[in-house]
Amino acid sequence: MSASHTIHSAHHHFGWDNALVSVMTVAPGDSVEIETVDSSGGQLTVDSDVSDVSAMDFGKVNPVTGPIKVDGAEAGDLLKVTLDTFEPSGWGWTAIIPGFGLLADQFTDAALYTWRYDASSLAPAAYSSVGQVPLKPFCGTIGLAPAEAGLHSVVPPRRVGGNMDIRDLSAGTVLYLPVEVDGALLSLGDTHAAQGDGEVCGTAIESPMAVGLTIDLVKQSPLRFPRYETKGPASSHFDRKGCQVTTGIGPDLMQGARDAVSGMIDLLGTRHGLSPAEAYMLCSVCADLRISEIVDQPNWVVSLYFPNIVFD
Amino acid sequence: MSASHTIHSAHHHFGWDNALVSVMTVAPGDSVEIETVDSSGGQLTVDSDVSDVSAMDFGKVNPVTGPIKVDGAEAGDLLKVTLDTFEPSGWGWTAIIPGFGLLADQFTDAALYTWRYDASSLAPAAYSSVGQVPLKPFCGTIGLAPAEAGLHSVVPPRRVGGNMDIRDLSAGTVLYLPVEVDGALLSLGDTHAAQGDGEVCGTAIESPMAVGLTIDLVKQSPLRFPRYETKGPASSHFDRKGCQVTTGIGPDLMQGARDAVSGMIDLLGTRHGLSPAEAYMLCSVCADLRISEIVDQPNWVVSLYFPNIVFD
Repeated sequence: MSASHTIHSAHHHFGWDNALVSVMTVAPGDSVEIETVDSSGGQLTVDSDVSDVSAMDFGKVNPVTGPIKVDGAEAGDLLKVTLDTFEPSGWGWTAIIPGFGLLADQFTDAALYTWRYDASSLAPAAYSSVGQVPLKPFCGTIGLAPAEAGLHSVVPPRRVGGNMDIRDLSAGTVLYLPVEVDGALLSLGDTHAAQGDGEVCGTAIESPMAVGLTIDLVKQSPLRFPRYETKGPASSHFDRKGCQVTTGIGPDLMQGARDAVSGMIDLLGTRHGLSPAEAYMLCSVCADLRISEIVDQPNWVVSLYFPNIVFD
Repeated sequence: MSASHTIHSAHHHFGWDNALVSVMTVAPGDSVEIETVDSSGGQLTVDSDVSDVSAMDFGKVNPVTGPIKVDGAEAGDLLKVTLDTFEPSGWGWTAIIPGFGLLADQFTDAALYTWRYDASSLAPAAYSSVGQVPLKPFCGTIGLAPAEAGLHSVVPPRRVGGNMDIRDLSAGTVLYLPVEVDGALLSLGDTHAAQGDGEVCGTAIESPMAVGLTIDLVKQSPLRFPRYETKGPASSHFDRKGCQVTTGIGPDLMQGARDAVSGMIDLLGTRHGLSPAEAYMLCSVCADLRISEIVDQPNWVVSLYFPNIVFD
């Protein structure tokens, strides 16, 4: 028989450490509802302005709720997490944080946009008077404690998951994470109301919410990196009215991605009058980075897909 | 008044060279129907076997039909190409070519799969008895002559386009290419009946076809790399039944892409009994490489989306 549990957002921690004491133990098959705080750890609110971004304490960012101990989990197993429900809060923020983001060298000033959206209808959220961004809530950070002892930064994702920022870890998706320690020690946070593949400016629509999930175990199943299963179209909320696409072509995928994003910032400025910072943040919440071609040596093609529906 | 023209596939060339004599001159607004040969230059047919891959003359691969001179085009302009129609031939091939492809170090033996498909219905094409691949014909190679004198390999794409292998350069898409020489000198070929983002094994469903397009000119409009506009959902032919997704996580996007593809090859082997070579070729024709996260330093996430519809 499976049970249902709730973990409140006060039970959060900073960074990953397999020595952390679990806040709850669940059995395979159990469902859990987990409350998250936003990735600023409550330092930003819907009433914040850009000075609050500059004043942020980066030791207190990206808290994750947990850890949850799973009965019987041991190294070599897979934790199977079914993402059942997302109950978003109705507000969020997107920022340019100096030193962070794909074009950090070009965007050295802090910027902030705060969003209000309808948490029940999840209707597209207004971006000033410029357009509307379709919403699809998901977990930016979901992962397990690593085998390696000590405290590990929450910023980089690892083979046990973590800050993967995969925008399709949304309702209905099933995620498989490699277990490295007894009990698995699952934590999650950094919930986003919307994001494009890449999260190019470094933040999405950062938004606290409650996440309902079901936890299961696949015993002794080797997996090098996380994998997941989506239940339906992953991109139709964005691309059903078509896209504007910019490219970057050359021998380095990172530079290709930077060039594609720069091209889109130029295009959004020319067509819609957006400032570079406004365009960069908008790309982060709704434009998708894809690798169009990775074999025609020595030049690869990275494309950024920006959805027409935003301006429709 | 616009005119309509036809260019037969005998008018092809190998590599890019701005000294090539154009086969036709068109005016902005004109429509052209262009026949292509397949990317083997006719060396492979629907009856070929793997020995024909090993015997191929690589000096004769990837012919492009053209070049077409556009009246009034000059450096600094954009050539606007509207891809109107594709009339596929009904057959194609996919190969592993030793030395070529994302996992060339692991796949050192040649392999070949030949496809027959219904050119009028474009119903999903059978991959042995394993599954069916949805089709969406497009131009793998479309580009202009570069400003730099001499003969340039057709393999790498450049800022004037070329072998970009962007699977959304399909019917309805509008492509903008930066013009570098008088007359633009447009050529195209390497038509594909289907491909996933990345074209990971190095070949798609390589298939000769006729391409109908309309050519226009945007005068003196600076653009660093090609851009394009899609008219509707780019991925729904693949992802409407959901996807299996593998990831690669680490500090190098290229290695991340390799890890994601390796993970999928393992999964397809375990679940569907495909050999590694069969799985690698299948990924190339229908699985999409995306950059899920490119900002959580120092580790990025590359994901490979394999469509469930193939096995549905």
